[in-house]
Amino acid sequence: MKVRFTKMHGLGNDFVVLDGVRQSLALTPDQLRQLADRRFGIGCDQILLVEAPTRPDADFRYRIFNADGGEVEQCGNGARCFVRFVREQGLTAQREIVVETMKGLIRPREGEDGNITVDMGVPRFAPDAIPFISPVDAVVQPLMVGDDEVMISVVSMGNPHAVQLVADVDTAPVASQGLLIENHLRFPQRVNAGFMQVVDRHAVRLRVFERGAGETLACGTGACAAAVAGIRRGLLDSPVRVATRGGELSIEWAGDEQPVFMSGPATTVFTGEIDL
Amino acid sequence: MKVRFTKMHGLGNDFVVLDGVRQSLALTPDQLRQLADRRFGIGCDQILLVEAPTRPDADFRYRIFNADGGEVEQCGNGARCFVRFVREQGLTAQREIVVETMKGLIRPREGEDGNITVDMGVPRFAPDAIPFISPVDAVVQPLMVGDDEVMISVVSMGNPHAVQLVADVDTAPVASQGLLIENHLRFPQRVNAGFMQVVDRHAVRLRVFERGAGETLACGTGACAAAVAGIRRGLLDSPVRVATRGGELSIEWAGDEQPVFMSGPATTVFTGEIDL
Repeated sequence: MKVRFTKMHGLGNDFVVLDGVRQSLALTPDQLRQLADRRFGIGCDQILLVEAPTRPDADFRYRIFNADGGEVEQCGNGARCFVRFVREQGLTAQREIVVETMKGLIRPREGEDGNITVDMGVPRFAPDAIPFISPVDAVVQPLMVGDDEVMISVVSMGNPHAVQLVADVDTAPVASQGLLIENHLRFPQRVNAGFMQVVDRHAVRLRVFERGAGETLACGTGACAAAVAGIRRGLLDSPVRVATRGGELSIEWAGDEQPVFMSGPATTVFTGEIDL
Repeated sequence: MKVRFTKMHGLGNDFVVLDGVRQSLALTPDQLRQLADRRFGIGCDQILLVEAPTRPDADFRYRIFNADGGEVEQCGNGARCFVRFVREQGLTAQREIVVETMKGLIRPREGEDGNITVDMGVPRFAPDAIPFISPVDAVVQPLMVGDDEVMISVVSMGNPHAVQLVADVDTAPVASQGLLIENHLRFPQRVNAGFMQVVDRHAVRLRVFERGAGETLACGTGACAAAVAGIRRGLLDSPVRVATRGGELSIEWAGDEQPVFMSGPATTVFTGEIDL
């Protein structure tokens, strides 16, 4: 079976995007794993499959598969690539697109500047929501990391984050401390460890040690968590530009019980055809 | 500039192959690095550029660039992919192709079974040729690796190899011993460390810890060195099937002062177009 595909990335988080609207695709987990393999296939973090919607109030349905072939929930970097893809391919001329995902409808939107904005949901801070074992629900609190006491802010963006301030992200102990924080006993489901350097009230630099993955080029939920933590601590004002190793995101948040909006680029790298 | 390419691999050693005969290509080191990047480009170990020959006795010229943009000498896995490429693309109908490389002419050949055979040169065994610091020129000799004495055979296939026998490659200490052997003081230019399990007189299983790269899926010169070492020790007869983690190679060697012929597959994975 010949399959046409587009290779894209959002800040280095990379995707093989398949048009399941104009070509008929029923891929097995083995075929998905082959597509994701960087030597024996095309290579990507995740596969995005764009399909016709199954409900009348959506424009498209989109499904995300990990490199192991398993289907997963939505991802901010992937949603941006999805929007760029359907517009570039001429599947729609709309700027705002209603998309059916595993978690329900989302409405990503491409702005005049080419950046794409995605609703990343409402952040949660209660220890139980993280989960984080703590007697208090404070904006900043101490965590013992090895022999050091580190001041962290905990945020759930659907997944758990612990954000700390550093003087310089380039010299921050991301690898060594990241692993200790990720697996800290006070985070029963482990945690993503963020290291944030404040540049000014609207700009930070960020590195994230991701749960189960180590340091990555850019973590969308990590950028949201860092900006929200900084705003809550009174150090930042919305919108916040977040510079990561993979590129820049912009985070908007109007405060408690409001959703976080993440804006950033999506890039088409190449197109091709593979015989599966 | 739009560039058409083909992604191929030989036992998992992967290549972006460019047709410089029918499209005009003058790529900068930056563009080569971008092509090789697995997230921001296509992704590969090396880039193969196929061009018209500069001398009348050759059919093609082919050049190899590492992921860092630097030009390198020929490589067995790349030569097999080159042959498959020019035949699949209709650039030639010949089975044996005369190719101009940095090291002179080579004559790879596609057999009736689809496997491609490459002349890998004459193996050298003298300690100075490896180089290996040793008072004797023996087929097998001891090397102290940490607290263990390991019996190795040294072979140069243009690059240095130290091959040892193991009972089972799956449990061989490739990572731990590999690094110690690679950097052993008796190998002034370091060495590729091979771990070979003899299955029968015509079949081995092999893992190689490559100099500067760690364990790889398949090392062409390592397969040649292992087969030659086994034949010299009287344990194997030519031809020798070498099973690696990336797939199988067949090695033929007629003995002293004769070249080694390596046969194996080359696989086209996908084709595409990238805008540089």
